[in-house]
Amino acid sequence: MKGETTVSGYLIRRLIDYDVDHVFGVPGDYILDFYRQLEESPLQMINTCDEQGAGFAADAYARLKGLGVVCVTYCVGGLKIANTTAQAFAEKSPLVVISGAPGLNERHRNPLLHHKVRDFDTQLNIFRHLTVAATDLIDVENGCCEIDRVLAAAVRHKQPVYIELPRDLTEAACSCSGDPSPPAAASDPDALHEALTETVQRLAQAQRPVLIAGIEIQRFGLQQPLLQLLEATGIPFATTPLSKSTLCEDHPLFLGVYEGAVGKEKARQAVEQSDCLLMLGAFMTDVNLGIFTAKLDQALTISSSSDGSSIAFHQYPEVLLGDFLPGLLDQNLPHRSTAAAKPTAAPQPFEAQDEPITIRRLFEYLETFIDDHMVLLADPGDAMFAATDLTIRHPAAFLSPAYYTSMGFAVPGAIGAQLARPDLRPLVLVGDGAFQMTGMELSTAVRFGLSPIVVVLNNGGYGTERPMTDGRFNDVPVWRFSRLPEVIGAVQGFEIFSEKDFEQALQAALTHTDSPAILDVHLDPHDHSPALKRLTDALGAKVRNSGK
Amino acid sequence: MKGETTVSGYLIRRLIDYDVDHVFGVPGDYILDFYRQLEESPLQMINTCDEQGAGFAADAYARLKGLGVVCVTYCVGGLKIANTTAQAFAEKSPLVVISGAPGLNERHRNPLLHHKVRDFDTQLNIFRHLTVAATDLIDVENGCCEIDRVLAAAVRHKQPVYIELPRDLTEAACSCSGDPSPPAAASDPDALHEALTETVQRLAQAQRPVLIAGIEIQRFGLQQPLLQLLEATGIPFATTPLSKSTLCEDHPLFLGVYEGAVGKEKARQAVEQSDCLLMLGAFMTDVNLGIFTAKLDQALTISSSSDGSSIAFHQYPEVLLGDFLPGLLDQNLPHRSTAAAKPTAAPQPFEAQDEPITIRRLFEYLETFIDDHMVLLADPGDAMFAATDLTIRHPAAFLSPAYYTSMGFAVPGAIGAQLARPDLRPLVLVGDGAFQMTGMELSTAVRFGLSPIVVVLNNGGYGTERPMTDGRFNDVPVWRFSRLPEVIGAVQGFEIFSEKDFEQALQAALTHTDSPAILDVHLDPHDHSPALKRLTDALGAKVRNSGK
Repeated sequence: MKGETTVSGYLIRRLIDYDVDHVFGVPGDYILDFYRQLEESPLQMINTCDEQGAGFAADAYARLKGLGVVCVTYCVGGLKIANTTAQAFAEKSPLVVISGAPGLNERHRNPLLHHKVRDFDTQLNIFRHLTVAATDLIDVENGCCEIDRVLAAAVRHKQPVYIELPRDLTEAACSCSGDPSPPAAASDPDALHEALTETVQRLAQAQRPVLIAGIEIQRFGLQQPLLQLLEATGIPFATTPLSKSTLCEDHPLFLGVYEGAVGKEKARQAVEQSDCLLMLGAFMTDVNLGIFTAKLDQALTISSSSDGSSIAFHQYPEVLLGDFLPGLLDQNLPHRSTAAAKPTAAPQPFEAQDEPITIRRLFEYLETFIDDHMVLLADPGDAMFAATDLTIRHPAAFLSPAYYTSMGFAVPGAIGAQLARPDLRPLVLVGDGAFQMTGMELSTAVRFGLSPIVVVLNNGGYGTERPMTDGRFNDVPVWRFSRLPEVIGAVQGFEIFSEKDFEQALQAALTHTDSPAILDVHLDPHDHSPALKRLTDALGAKVRNSGK
Repeated sequence: MKGETTVSGYLIRRLIDYDVDHVFGVPGDYILDFYRQLEESPLQMINTCDEQGAGFAADAYARLKGLGVVCVTYCVGGLKIANTTAQAFAEKSPLVVISGAPGLNERHRNPLLHHKVRDFDTQLNIFRHLTVAATDLIDVENGCCEIDRVLAAAVRHKQPVYIELPRDLTEAACSCSGDPSPPAAASDPDALHEALTETVQRLAQAQRPVLIAGIEIQRFGLQQPLLQLLEATGIPFATTPLSKSTLCEDHPLFLGVYEGAVGKEKARQAVEQSDCLLMLGAFMTDVNLGIFTAKLDQALTISSSSDGSSIAFHQYPEVLLGDFLPGLLDQNLPHRSTAAAKPTAAPQPFEAQDEPITIRRLFEYLETFIDDHMVLLADPGDAMFAATDLTIRHPAAFLSPAYYTSMGFAVPGAIGAQLARPDLRPLVLVGDGAFQMTGMELSTAVRFGLSPIVVVLNNGGYGTERPMTDGRFNDVPVWRFSRLPEVIGAVQGFEIFSEKDFEQALQAALTHTDSPAILDVHLDPHDHSPALKRLTDALGAKVRNSGK
């Protein structure tokens, strides 16, 4: 890729090369000229109500499409997405943050320009904490190489990067020479050979090997070799909450989601009683592993990720998941028949009663309702914990910030998800408290012709916190969610009290394929899913002990 | 103040000492124990829908009450208010950010706890960029002194500070010895004497002295000595947009708001033709001074602020506004009669017509409508620029982020303003785009029995940007703002098309003193106030030139 172009022209072209079709954001004067250029490009601009919504939408888009882009103005835009960028960093989502900035020709003698905080580098310095690569494109001569470097880092590490565009340089010429793609990271061959040999030996001696498929399997697109490995060896597997739906969950070898004492018993027993635990691309996070209720024996664990590998207590920093997994597949490991292996049972038929709806019954119905044409987004709270138990029969059709757990992700996330995967209709599970943070982005869905079905678990407050420490601070104001169509237009609103209401509303929402729906599900404030009950017991004990 | 207490007990007591009555925020598990203690204290907890709303509300509260507090959980809460804290930093608002954090007993071997970004210091390091003092209270022995140091910095610099509370230390004992208040900053006496002497000489030789009262006059409570100085000397004065309403704007010596070519002619001529310009506590920011259309001659300028002083081209870094202004008052400067001095004319009576409402007419009516029992909050956009021309007859009764200009401030800001000044009813002027960012915090106002009157200037998008560069990205989705009561309850909603509609709605809102009102004012998308027209002409030229 040779030749001369402009900074913004090159940036747009490279985003298209990476298969990006949409850019999320809110305009402002420091980025306005770039917005005009975006509008003239093949990229579609998706304006959200607030920058926070754009950040979450782009994160979800990145998780499903391989790269997401959020484009905002200087500081008043950029600093609004510090949190959403932090989530993408923590959960390995390849997100590109593009921010406008004052022009170099405006910076002489350090004037107090609007939107400036401390100095012209404040935003850049903050984003250095939240990204794996950052550039301010002041060195225009080198601009194309900088764009290549930063975008390649996002794709290589599956983490956010930051590009700051001074507004007087967007049309400056920049040339680029050579191949913009840096060589991929590769494992040390000798270390890889030793690690594979040791793994083969350990697996051969193991009676009850179990594999945990972590989120990096999805991020690095390794589902296919993983599935081959599982089917060739007959080793049963679990996922973590963050990596839920990495493979189809009705696979006979699937044990369930492992999350320590919080998860279901079948997965817990198999994982904790395993004599050889193969963790591929999994992070050992707290919520992800049941807030430290996990009981894993490091002596029996083999772990490999994009950051390196380890076996028992020794490390292979130069052995990377991208080589380890195919390498393991090449070892022609023997097939074993596993007692645990049996197909997931078909869901129990659900007969809606004319009874007040409970969380348990709501999720029993969802188990029968969700199908291969949906992507499920679960917001932190009981929506997320209860949803972990659902059977997702379509790979990568479940999104939840199960490690960073920032409330307010799911509604704007559904916008990003449906644009990334127009073949899937988003089903959003969100608490009333979380909806009040970002749920008005539903109007963005209306604007762009999207059709998420939003189920609000309305229990009058922050239900996850009540069992830990309760007070008026856990209450939220009453919103009549089903009346939102009065304000934002073409949305179907439903008010749900009984099981029958819920069933009818979801069926009605299904038939209206071209508009969003919102279901206000009235729940008892003290009704919790079994998973949340187990989690809050664990967390509550932690909070109580920590105060002493 | 001696004796032993707990970290959280001491923090709460010191906030009360500083006259804080309310704390704004959203709870989360890392701060939950402190929330419980807040609920048991005399402080009232004001929960907002989203942390962003809490940040803006606390900023407005700080501006009116001298100290504001926002209290959030770790990262997913704290990083959501990076932008609102940046605004407080840029505009000198004394805001205390309190964030929960993982307990020290949870941090062994650097585990991946939920809400963690890169390492345990990420949030602290980010807030160091946005505050004048920050502490993580890990050194409990020293905890009380740290709290004193940080709170004193907020009050001394009138800028944000950051306190991070590990959740296992909130009830740890901390002792404090001695006087927690550090000595106030003081000017060097010799430098002060020289600066005052020089100022007196320059004023004596000046024919047309003019004073600009900047925002620090409000922040440091210097309105009274300023008024004495003005009335003793007869020097006419102007304000900046940020410091608008520092003194009553119907004062005979008031020239108007000075903002270069953007402001009204009377103030501009007087300021730019002055042969001795006395700037007290004013920042030379761009929007504040009409985006560099200001023409000020530094050779004729005397400037004093909390950071130091200067006369013409020489500096007095050790001469501070807090000493300079009283010092000047002590000089017994002669009184002069000023041609410019005449009382502000009473507003023209407004006769509402049955005509479509325009921005010009809307503000003509507001000029007759606003009274001493209101505080006006103007969101960035035409709301802010047009409001600059209104006559505010009550000191400190106008709030607008006129330097940092972060959209979405005004609705949550009204919550903070009414709690800080329950004698004043907030009148909010906000664009439709800005309302869609944070306007749902109106439900927080309902929850806490507040009664802002919210006027939405609905012109279908980002009206400030259209004259610069227009495109679909400047459109926002249609919301029927007047139907919001359907969703959030006890609010009066009005749909406004004509002047008569507007007058009737405002009068009706006035009579309902105990609930909020929202007025959806339908404006022509191309209708701009004269002030915005002047500003966007200047900005548009800037953007066009910068792209070349």
